[in-house]
Amino acid sequence: MSYNEHQDCPFGVLMRLLSGPWTLYLIWVLHNKGPTRFGALQREVSGISTKVLTERLRMLEAEGILYRDYKPTIPPEVTYGLSPRGRELMEVIDQLDELAGRWYGSSASGIDQA
Amino acid sequence: MSYNEHQDCPFGVLMRLLSGPWTLYLIWVLHNKGPTRFGALQREVSGISTKVLTERLRMLEAEGILYRDYKPTIPPEVTYGLSPRGRELMEVIDQLDELAGRWYGSSASGIDQA
Repeated sequence: MSYNEHQDCPFGVLMRLLSGPWTLYLIWVLHNKGPTRFGALQREVSGISTKVLTERLRMLEAEGILYRDYKPTIPPEVTYGLSPRGRELMEVIDQLDELAGRWYGSSASGIDQA
Repeated sequence: MSYNEHQDCPFGVLMRLLSGPWTLYLIWVLHNKGPTRFGALQREVSGISTKVLTERLRMLEAEGILYRDYKPTIPPEVTYGLSPRGRELMEVIDQLDELAGRWYGSSASGIDQA
């Protein structure tokens, strides 16, 4: 994106975050499925490598958009879910999707028709 | 962006549109300034070439996001403004900006502090 001198404004920071690979899709999956384990996430987002999925999840956790829940069972259970920021973001993403559905398609929730 | 098999869903179409160069910024400027003439737009978006600005405006007009008003005076007067779709989009962008302001900055409208 080209925001010229506005690269470092809060809006630009958020837009760069959202336009990162898989970011919106991961948020969407966690919204639809609720708390999800790593393996299930990887099956859902077919085509993502373990390395890239780990990296994106860490980034979204650092941004406060999702939380990581670790249960020290044997084997350990690691679950990811949307934190309050993630849910807040989803409300806006939902509106964009609704709008996209009205403008460009018959469905208002095209992205989860896998 | 990577939506995998979802590339052609309405949401993906809208996201690709919004992530095009200058797109969000042009919508923002027209929202803040109201109907604006080509030359004034080009001064506002410093760094954009006449060719690229023409191309982006035509694309946004074709998408129904802005309108082009031509008055056959001498010299002709060409004005651009947000159409209903553009205003609808701005409502959602405003929410993203408000959220970005709370998360990443003290200001809730960083992008228009040129």
